[in-house]
Amino acid sequence: MARFSERSLIETILYPLSKDCPGAFGLSDDAALISPRSGFEMVVTKDALVAGVHFFPGDAPELIAAKALRVNLSDLYAKGAEPAYYLLSLFLTPDMNEAWLRAFAKGLAADQKKYAIGLLGGDTVRTPGPFSLSVTMLGEVPKGKMVHRSGARAGDHIFVSGPIGDAALGLEVAAKQLLTNDSNDSDYLKQQYLLPDPDQTLILPVRDFASAAMDVSDGLAGDLTLLCAASGVTAQVDVAAVPLSTAARHVLQNRPELISKILTGGDDYKILCTVPSENVAEFNAICGDKMHRIGEIITGHSSVKFIGRDGQTMSLSALSYRHF
Amino acid sequence: MARFSERSLIETILYPLSKDCPGAFGLSDDAALISPRSGFEMVVTKDALVAGVHFFPGDAPELIAAKALRVNLSDLYAKGAEPAYYLLSLFLTPDMNEAWLRAFAKGLAADQKKYAIGLLGGDTVRTPGPFSLSVTMLGEVPKGKMVHRSGARAGDHIFVSGPIGDAALGLEVAAKQLLTNDSNDSDYLKQQYLLPDPDQTLILPVRDFASAAMDVSDGLAGDLTLLCAASGVTAQVDVAAVPLSTAARHVLQNRPELISKILTGGDDYKILCTVPSENVAEFNAICGDKMHRIGEIITGHSSVKFIGRDGQTMSLSALSYRHF
Repeated sequence: MARFSERSLIETILYPLSKDCPGAFGLSDDAALISPRSGFEMVVTKDALVAGVHFFPGDAPELIAAKALRVNLSDLYAKGAEPAYYLLSLFLTPDMNEAWLRAFAKGLAADQKKYAIGLLGGDTVRTPGPFSLSVTMLGEVPKGKMVHRSGARAGDHIFVSGPIGDAALGLEVAAKQLLTNDSNDSDYLKQQYLLPDPDQTLILPVRDFASAAMDVSDGLAGDLTLLCAASGVTAQVDVAAVPLSTAARHVLQNRPELISKILTGGDDYKILCTVPSENVAEFNAICGDKMHRIGEIITGHSSVKFIGRDGQTMSLSALSYRHF
Repeated sequence: MARFSERSLIETILYPLSKDCPGAFGLSDDAALISPRSGFEMVVTKDALVAGVHFFPGDAPELIAAKALRVNLSDLYAKGAEPAYYLLSLFLTPDMNEAWLRAFAKGLAADQKKYAIGLLGGDTVRTPGPFSLSVTMLGEVPKGKMVHRSGARAGDHIFVSGPIGDAALGLEVAAKQLLTNDSNDSDYLKQQYLLPDPDQTLILPVRDFASAAMDVSDGLAGDLTLLCAASGVTAQVDVAAVPLSTAARHVLQNRPELISKILTGGDDYKILCTVPSENVAEFNAICGDKMHRIGEIITGHSSVKFIGRDGQTMSLSALSYRHF
């Protein structure tokens, strides 16, 4: 990058993103100041992304910016929290230029508006590469109302938002490991990998009705296993009830074995939650077709069971996608 | 790194660091929960470090851990805030092993105890390199008591804690750009670069008596210029009054031109603050020899003046050390 100082980057490109955050002090102080509204607590999450690991180095800067925010928004939504602010650390590489950074900031600005959040602070450092970024996001929840992973009880119904597996298939498409018959399907699946789309309207129903929740980021099977372990229960999932996109259904027609990837692949960024049976009617009435019942929490500590269309328990070779 | 899963790293190495933070939920939830004490606000800062940029890749893992925490502690101290929690993103490279990570965690544990902070959350990602880390640190300050950069007024006295320039000289020593006559001096200076030592006892006097403050991280000259700009004033510094270590004095005997590096070099992590004249006596009485008066804030917008021992204004070629 041409010698573009940290100060210049902050003053010209990042400063405008902080305008609506009084506690950011125009990014010109050493630290930011926040306070939850009376009766609220702050929920904090922190997720980092690395070029070549969590996104393709050539992805549009606007998309990278949006993905970095949305993987954090997804965590807060699953806790029943309303996002408010974020801090951003940028690890910039020598080849990055001002145009790239302006496009990246444009992506941040668009999502700030869409999700009603503001830039509170952070820093920029140089790195020999790869370009990386770390987001810390803070939200608010009424005192005592954060939804944990650990509250699931036997008899609770298991719900998941939106289609599962599209991002994992989209990554295969992008890596040319999977060919679809229809280019619309390819485009759709890739887009799901590139850009999660967390749904704000689910914050309140999750907060008000779920006994436990988390976001599905490392695969439905692995994440449900974590939720059950945290709650001291197990679960049974009806695979036929797992919501799938039309594109994923098309893929499965030719490659039925990819159901494993759909159930274990990462990057869904959907909400997985459990709802006590007495809350289910109201939860369904509010969420409509945004939440899909996929199974039930049951007593015990055995592995979570995924029951296939043939009525048999599926064997999933790896529960979860991500390792390092 | 041998296939050491994120879960295993979190459960065996990082989890013990979160034990004293109830809101961390044993690092087993998607987000953490915090709330300032009644009558307090939260101060947040976020600083990232990259191997080969902010520390040497071969530095002891305990030292890297401590430096990552201390550069953030330094920011909070300069705001008059008491640190409470931190979140940590680790960007791990393929060659890192469990022994390295355990040593790193040992460094975190030692500083958690020394500075009374706890691990609240974060994440771990893999990177092709270099090893990097990002810390978000949260502290508390009584409502309305955060000390800003922007409060300096003409007539205020300028103070700085501890010796200035040792870290910048230490980096030169470590890079073999500077030879000292005495190996004790070399060891001392390198240590100052490797490990900042923020002083907790300065939090309260800064909060109670300073009109403006910041930590000196990018060079005294540049940082004082920022403080003056934020406050709409300028300053005059008596270079002979800038506190120097014995080792730095020895260096200057042979290489008097290095006074520029001392005044503009980075990584001091000392506190720079301004104190209204009516507070100076009490501030001095409390801080003793931990704070050194180096000059005065004056009206105007001209460049900050550094007056040398000869009574002449020094010309500092670059005010600040860090660019990218």
